[in-house]
Amino acid sequence: MFESAELGHTIDRETFRREVPKLRAELLDVQFEVLQKKEFQVVILVSGVDGSGKGETINLLYSWMDPRHISTLAFSNPTDEERSRPYMWRYWRALPPKGKVGIFAGSWYSHPIADRIAGNMRRSEMDQQLDDINRFEAMLVNEGALVLKFWFHLSKDGQKKRLKALEKNPNTAWRVTPESYDRLKTYDKLQDVAGHVLRVSNTAHAPWIIVEGTNDEYRSLTVGRIVLEAIRRRVQQEGRQQVPVAPPIVHAIDQKNVLTELDLTQKLSKKEYESQLAKYQARLSELARDPRFTSKHSLALVFEGSDAAGKGGSIRRVGASMDARQYQIVPIAAPTEEERAQPYLWRFWRHLPRTGRATIFDRSWYGRVLVERVEGFCSEADWLRAYAEINDFEHQMVAAGTIVIKFWLQISADEQLRRFKERQDTEFKRFKITDEDWRNREKWDDYVSAVCDMVDRSSTGLAPWTLVEANDKNFARVKVLKTICERIEAALKADEGGK
Amino acid sequence: MFESAELGHTIDRETFRREVPKLRAELLDVQFEVLQKKEFQVVILVSGVDGSGKGETINLLYSWMDPRHISTLAFSNPTDEERSRPYMWRYWRALPPKGKVGIFAGSWYSHPIADRIAGNMRRSEMDQQLDDINRFEAMLVNEGALVLKFWFHLSKDGQKKRLKALEKNPNTAWRVTPESYDRLKTYDKLQDVAGHVLRVSNTAHAPWIIVEGTNDEYRSLTVGRIVLEAIRRRVQQEGRQQVPVAPPIVHAIDQKNVLTELDLTQKLSKKEYESQLAKYQARLSELARDPRFTSKHSLALVFEGSDAAGKGGSIRRVGASMDARQYQIVPIAAPTEEERAQPYLWRFWRHLPRTGRATIFDRSWYGRVLVERVEGFCSEADWLRAYAEINDFEHQMVAAGTIVIKFWLQISADEQLRRFKERQDTEFKRFKITDEDWRNREKWDDYVSAVCDMVDRSSTGLAPWTLVEANDKNFARVKVLKTICERIEAALKADEGGK
Repeated sequence: MFESAELGHTIDRETFRREVPKLRAELLDVQFEVLQKKEFQVVILVSGVDGSGKGETINLLYSWMDPRHISTLAFSNPTDEERSRPYMWRYWRALPPKGKVGIFAGSWYSHPIADRIAGNMRRSEMDQQLDDINRFEAMLVNEGALVLKFWFHLSKDGQKKRLKALEKNPNTAWRVTPESYDRLKTYDKLQDVAGHVLRVSNTAHAPWIIVEGTNDEYRSLTVGRIVLEAIRRRVQQEGRQQVPVAPPIVHAIDQKNVLTELDLTQKLSKKEYESQLAKYQARLSELARDPRFTSKHSLALVFEGSDAAGKGGSIRRVGASMDARQYQIVPIAAPTEEERAQPYLWRFWRHLPRTGRATIFDRSWYGRVLVERVEGFCSEADWLRAYAEINDFEHQMVAAGTIVIKFWLQISADEQLRRFKERQDTEFKRFKITDEDWRNREKWDDYVSAVCDMVDRSSTGLAPWTLVEANDKNFARVKVLKTICERIEAALKADEGGK
Repeated sequence: MFESAELGHTIDRETFRREVPKLRAELLDVQFEVLQKKEFQVVILVSGVDGSGKGETINLLYSWMDPRHISTLAFSNPTDEERSRPYMWRYWRALPPKGKVGIFAGSWYSHPIADRIAGNMRRSEMDQQLDDINRFEAMLVNEGALVLKFWFHLSKDGQKKRLKALEKNPNTAWRVTPESYDRLKTYDKLQDVAGHVLRVSNTAHAPWIIVEGTNDEYRSLTVGRIVLEAIRRRVQQEGRQQVPVAPPIVHAIDQKNVLTELDLTQKLSKKEYESQLAKYQARLSELARDPRFTSKHSLALVFEGSDAAGKGGSIRRVGASMDARQYQIVPIAAPTEEERAQPYLWRFWRHLPRTGRATIFDRSWYGRVLVERVEGFCSEADWLRAYAEINDFEHQMVAAGTIVIKFWLQISADEQLRRFKERQDTEFKRFKITDEDWRNREKWDDYVSAVCDMVDRSSTGLAPWTLVEANDKNFARVKVLKTICERIEAALKADEGGK
């Protein structure tokens, strides 16, 4: 969920100063259009980690747009008036009318998150409240509103650094209180709760937009651009929207993303490889036969990756560590006629492993948000709703004891070219390369966008993505095996903890 | 929720024999079209009270359609295979492919309902599971499926009678077991749980269709017709549907509905009226000042009814029993400009009473599913989703301590005509009658349909409708006051019970 927001996104002040005037002019233009049309309101929620710059960004947005048609609502403890009415009353009261923009500092998410962290609310109670919230937001969007939900994220280290920086600057030191440092202590708890909240409320009509909060310029420019693009797109829809459409996925201004930040130079020598391979294969072999695993758990392994990234080779090394009767490999190609006659996820449900078994998916349900999105095989609405459907799907597996491990194998464009050529030149590898592979290569950038969105929207606490640097096959294979061992061990340990 | 299914709906065998051949021919036709198009599957859930004829109706549907393209799936306890995979696996496995019809006897609802009745599941856990189910069904509908959820209802008395009848007939006696009688004992519990489940899962894309189970012919013909109409309508949608549309609301074959079954001849003499009015006004006056009420509760009264049904007169009698500072009357007419610029429910949220206070709504949020539906002021999709939104809204009020009491005042067409003429002829009443009233009168039947759907879909355990026979004004006013007193007393009593 937060992967893309821990990359140290930053832009320099120079770029910021150059970009802002244009952005401001454009924001004022679209704001005027919203006001003229009076067909919808813009609801912007600003939430996130303490010290991630919520206040600064709200102030900037306020100064960039026409303040007569923005309202900023800050919510703290409910008033008497509010307490004697239903929970949502204060938010209804604060809704901006059509034609206006409302910025919510603190929102209907604040209380469930705070109560859960403080231990005043059971998980199932929180889920009920999130369900109410989802229905409320669905209603807003059905009524025409554009709902933009921002979550500002800081890594644990980033939060510490930001607090120090704020303290140093005499202009901002007042904002750091003893409570700010207390919050550092609950960082992990917040990440845990927020990860769950964001997963459950990441709907197709009102998805979360996660922004790294470390660098002021980056954060503010990113938010400004997303607000601009989303309004622009909504204004262009004639009349009332019929199918609620998610706001655009806007990519990082500084060109950094979870794939560019991988260190693809990592490698293992033949000797290291052989010793580590043997070590982890032996460990996996033991774990797969461990009665604590076979009696309660099953294993779903997902392999996705660039073409020629080495999925097959990794899968073989995993398979070699297990009894052939215990696992099956399911290669996912174009769906069969029978599969096309069913809802999209049906072809994966049918292969779910039972307790004690493993299924290795060679490509997977992520096809919907990768190849189907890039090639236009399904509508935008279809792949947008797929993220939430996939998260639900994996959540159900995990609830039933399945350990879900997802790998994205990444190679560089150069390395891919080298491998393609090698395949063409080697008689016994030629079957592995088709015209389609060359065509896909031309869409490299589209795939990068799709992969980054996929990781952001489907890397959950229960089923995180593991990105594998795969330029060196040895390194990749060992990382895959090691990850599987560690995830199984973590699951067995969690069982002991009575979790 | 179950009001329309406790009217003793019945059709005679003669009509049944005459209607069935035509229905069968038409069902076969649409079934063939579904098969040819292969664009969607039909998923039919048959659930409901024990002994309500689920089996018989499934068998009939099976014999009426082409059995090669129907599958009937009965689910009882999960198998080994099923238990070692996620809960929904067995249902995914059983989904019919596009082009086919699947009838589910017992469904994903069975376990949550049974577990809850047996006390093995907390309310919040059940709500979580219902939330999963709602998302699953949304996914099915988004993937193109037509989902028809039938709930067969019997009144408590009706269930007893049906068991006796089954026992008497040697062909069916084997179906009555000691467990059947045990279920009678849990009848109230089932109604309570089912009422909640049906409310929460009554979504716009897959609403429940409640059918009275007492009379075999009525039940089967009704289900057959609804299936026919829903498939016909879905087949006519070109290509993939973009906005999921609910199945049609088909009206009772025997012309009985909650309004026709009211006894409008009920009346009170002047003397009775005066004594009862005084009695209940005094009681309400006391209750409204009772610290147990003013410290925890508030009161939302909703008055809807035919034109000239006497809403104003009833409201005045209620108001007369309370301190003017304690309540406000909110007359709902066309929305103001400010209100039009907000989501539909906003204009009602703003008037919610705080603790200790009352708001009397003279017309209400139900305008959306009454006048707006009949006059076409909003789209079908809008008023279809309104039922769930309104239920959520009232549920939030109730959760905050508000006692929600909803009245529909019904007069006969003749009585309305008499009152209209009287108004025209009486100088000081002439302002009360407009051309619009006469126009509305021409749409009498459309309004009857809208009112019946409204009662079926929004009369919930927490906020039930009270239908008031209003041909006699005295009778109506006393019934209104009496109901308010009883509902407040029930709420105070429930508080004592620690509920």
